Amino acid sequence: MNNQEREQMLAQAKQWILEAGAHIRESIDQPRQVTTKSDAKDLVTDLDEQTEQFFTEKIRSRYPDHYVFGEEGFGDEIASLAGVLWFVDPIDGTMNFVHQKCNFTISIGIYEDGIGELGLIYNVMEDDLYVGMKTQGAYKNGTRLPALKSGGDLEKSILAMNAFWATPNRLIHHEAMQQLVQKVRGTRSYGSAALEFAYVAEGMVDGYLTMSLMPWDIAAGIILVDEVGGKTTTGDGKPLNMLEKNTVLTSQSAIHQEIIDTYIHFK
Amino acid sequence: MNNQEREQMLAQAKQWILEAGAHIRESIDQPRQVTTKSDAKDLVTDLDEQTEQFFTEKIRSRYPDHYVFGEEGFGDEIASLAGVLWFVDPIDGTMNFVHQKCNFTISIGIYEDGIGELGLIYNVMEDDLYVGMKTQGAYKNGTRLPALKSGGDLEKSILAMNAFWATPNRLIHHEAMQQLVQKVRGTRSYGSAALEFAYVAEGMVDGYLTMSLMPWDIAAGIILVDEVGGKTTTGDGKPLNMLEKNTVLTSQSAIHQEIIDTYIHFK
Repeated sequence: MNNQEREQMLAQAKQWILEAGAHIRESIDQPRQVTTKSDAKDLVTDLDEQTEQFFTEKIRSRYPDHYVFGEEGFGDEIASLAGVLWFVDPIDGTMNFVHQKCNFTISIGIYEDGIGELGLIYNVMEDDLYVGMKTQGAYKNGTRLPALKSGGDLEKSILAMNAFWATPNRLIHHEAMQQLVQKVRGTRSYGSAALEFAYVAEGMVDGYLTMSLMPWDIAAGIILVDEVGGKTTTGDGKPLNMLEKNTVLTSQSAIHQEIIDTYIHFK
Repeated sequence: MNNQEREQMLAQAKQWILEAGAHIRESIDQPRQVTTKSDAKDLVTDLDEQTEQFFTEKIRSRYPDHYVFGEEGFGDEIASLAGVLWFVDPIDGTMNFVHQKCNFTISIGIYEDGIGELGLIYNVMEDDLYVGMKTQGAYKNGTRLPALKSGGDLEKSILAMNAFWATPNRLIHHEAMQQLVQKVRGTRSYGSAALEFAYVAEGMVDGYLTMSLMPWDIAAGIILVDEVGGKTTTGDGKPLNMLEKNTVLTSQSAIHQEIIDTYIHFK
């Protein structure tokens, strides 16, 4: 994908994301149909589904040779990263959407042959649009985000992570997580993975750690964090698998390896 | 204090809080002198101190017979709740102020003979002012906040609490806290106690639990939460001591007792 193609696609994606966001804002106070998916905490609403359908139809009509990999299943069956692939999370942070009516995002990542080209994260209620473009930088509302600080001290860091990972769970040893919670200056938890990636990119938090994210949760965020010099890997430092569920650590570079080496122990 | 006195005092406090907030916003990008207080995570800046000094001088000059109980020590030595007492937290969420340059508040609570009369919480960077007035309701930017829902199910609740309390600590049994984290639908952590009280009052979260807050952290928030029908007590359900450090649970009423009875076990 050359720069011109990337910029045209960004303009198009931006238009759609703003349109979808405006529609969500207009209907934020309407009664919602809330159901659960994989478990009682995994919520989905009619608006998640409508919004994904909106993107899928738009993408298919404008870019018939592109693929769509979406949270709610309106896209394609994806078994390979070949070609141009749109990762669509129509509402990231559905629990916040339902309970708070804010702090949720639309997250769109566009990849070509597995390489991240464009990432858009839209904080709908704040009307904040974060954009990452391969080799062209990361932006918040059109203003370029500065590079993350290169030196970092874990003890003086703020880490976004959900308290759940400091409790007994089937994926990681929570005792080491507890040590991490006590090691850092503070932890925060905002409830939207894409938003937490955006916060890493803008330096609001020094890292974000979680143990179970799907490719559409992270596709846009990875590009944003890359473009400000941060790093995103699995919880054991491997490249992410963009076809499956991942453990995820995204952070400024200086603290990345220490968190992995010292605090993340898989079961 | 009659309604008229309360309203005059609110107008005055509002004017000061907006003035102080504007000054903080103007100087948000200036280099800061950051030092630590009780421990390495307890930060204070020159601007915390200047802002408390600002309020102390204003209050003393306009209300010479009132007392000031402030975080940074510019107020009075307070050994009793007699008279009119201003609880002043010039910057609540100093870590956010330093690291994020947002998500911090100015919190002012005005009590007469130990009774909460007025609470103001100002989210400085968002320019959101929350006000609670005894028997007159709670407001965000002038709009009255509705009463919190009266029925509540802990399993479907979002609870603000820092992950720290789910790790071994000297105050409470963290194992029960871990069960609470797993019981609720989700936890969040925003890093400013006053802001988290305001979020309880506006129904963004169903409760906020923490084990170590000073009177100036909670004085305003208690009034706000009261005025929408919520409840604030110590972690074992007792009335708060407004002269000392407290454990604190503030929440909508329906889930309050269950959290205390089942999940909070002091050491």
